[in-house]
Amino acid sequence: MRVIETIAELKSIVKEEKAAGKSIGFVPTMGYLHEGHLTLANAARKENELVVMSIFVNPTQFGPNEDFDSYPRDLERDTRLAESVGVDFIFAPSVKEMYPSNGGIKIVAGRQSEILCGASRPGHFDGVLQVVAKLFHLVEPDRAYFGQKDAQQVALIQTLVRDFNFPLEVRTVPIVREEDGLAKSSRNVYLSEQERANAPAIFEALLLAKEEFLSKGDVKGAVEIASAHILSKTDGNIDYLEIYSYPDLQAVTEETEHFLLAAAVYIGKTRLIDNIIFSLKGETANV
Amino acid sequence: MRVIETIAELKSIVKEEKAAGKSIGFVPTMGYLHEGHLTLANAARKENELVVMSIFVNPTQFGPNEDFDSYPRDLERDTRLAESVGVDFIFAPSVKEMYPSNGGIKIVAGRQSEILCGASRPGHFDGVLQVVAKLFHLVEPDRAYFGQKDAQQVALIQTLVRDFNFPLEVRTVPIVREEDGLAKSSRNVYLSEQERANAPAIFEALLLAKEEFLSKGDVKGAVEIASAHILSKTDGNIDYLEIYSYPDLQAVTEETEHFLLAAAVYIGKTRLIDNIIFSLKGETANV
Repeated sequence: MRVIETIAELKSIVKEEKAAGKSIGFVPTMGYLHEGHLTLANAARKENELVVMSIFVNPTQFGPNEDFDSYPRDLERDTRLAESVGVDFIFAPSVKEMYPSNGGIKIVAGRQSEILCGASRPGHFDGVLQVVAKLFHLVEPDRAYFGQKDAQQVALIQTLVRDFNFPLEVRTVPIVREEDGLAKSSRNVYLSEQERANAPAIFEALLLAKEEFLSKGDVKGAVEIASAHILSKTDGNIDYLEIYSYPDLQAVTEETEHFLLAAAVYIGKTRLIDNIIFSLKGETANV
Repeated sequence: MRVIETIAELKSIVKEEKAAGKSIGFVPTMGYLHEGHLTLANAARKENELVVMSIFVNPTQFGPNEDFDSYPRDLERDTRLAESVGVDFIFAPSVKEMYPSNGGIKIVAGRQSEILCGASRPGHFDGVLQVVAKLFHLVEPDRAYFGQKDAQQVALIQTLVRDFNFPLEVRTVPIVREEDGLAKSSRNVYLSEQERANAPAIFEALLLAKEEFLSKGDVKGAVEIASAHILSKTDGNIDYLEIYSYPDLQAVTEETEHFLLAAAVYIGKTRLIDNIIFSLKGETANV
């Protein structure tokens, strides 16, 4: 495995491998890899001849009061983990390498970004789409892998790829959880012992809300039950806990077939997100 | 030569030709081809194994009071002309084929779009960048060809390709002129005989302004001389006549080395644009 830090080197490798007819699977990450990322890499490994992972903490998707500077980074550890699951190339550019110039052209995420995580993180998804578009153009993958954990992000990237005709497939991989149900996240390391013990309440709440919603069909009642569970089991503040149609992220109607039930909760100072996607029959949807 | 109307067919051809290792030159147009377009196709023909031309009058770059409906179209004639200069494939999709869905994600052109043609055509360059990004993803060219006639458009597309790392080269081809200096344009067919006789005053004015600017270094004086020439020789209304640095389209300073002198003039109801790009030494810049 090789770690690449410059765009010039990456492009020369991509050109060579594509000329040799190799399919490319791409796993974009912000590093500090956990099992969730490795699951994405495994999926990419199975379906492609070459696997490229990017490790780049993208400043344009962090707000001024967010954790860009303190976001955990450990390239050495990440390199070992990526190698262990068969990644061929890590692309780990500097901020200057990725953003040497700015002519003022922006990708603006629009209405799908105004709810859920987008509502409390203005500009976040503009930054996500910007870096994803750049990385897609640099890596030229056949398939790109994203975790369902960031369900709103996946919906937006699917929309970007569809509406702008990017020549690649978006693959969504289910959430990987700890044994007690907590969704894996780089940010879990911020939790105190007590906070970590309470955090599974988020997923428990989502399961309660799903059951309530499927039996009674009432969005408001389902959200209330889930919120009450989180507030009784943690000292957390609920940022949002909502149900939308999936993947178009519109209000639920009688016609909606697939649902996204998503939550963001501050456990102490750490903001955790989780979601479940399900159909009217109660099955987890294949997204 | 083949005319392709669906994205599916285009993608299958692009995939096949790229797998065979062929280089692709791409000439995006709105059709009603004139010598300017054919010059672009000739340039593409010289540098690539395969030449794809798109013919698509893009609705998203026209304002509500602009000439989308009356924009001239003649696919049969275009097909003959394109074939005569060795184009391999024409991609001529319907509006529905290009825009079947809209999730609300936009490319916003930013500060370079707020001057010149952009100032009087709000949203125009957003639409241009949208369709160009889509076409780049569909055709996957090695090189894309644009006429210098639309100098602001070229500057914006160069910025898009640079800042979003599109894997292709933008080639700029000089303006093709009639014998009396009028820049070739699909819109010249709108001119009455008298208007056509007066229209070369636009290019004459640009040459006068360039001389004045190079000898006295005074932007305002140069613009005044050129404006006076146009107003004395035509019944036209000047939309703009301005000088900027090129290709960054900022105000001229002591450090500016390359200049864009650009005009848009209504001759009767027909809006014509023209420009010259030059260096301090008076040479036409190689853009």
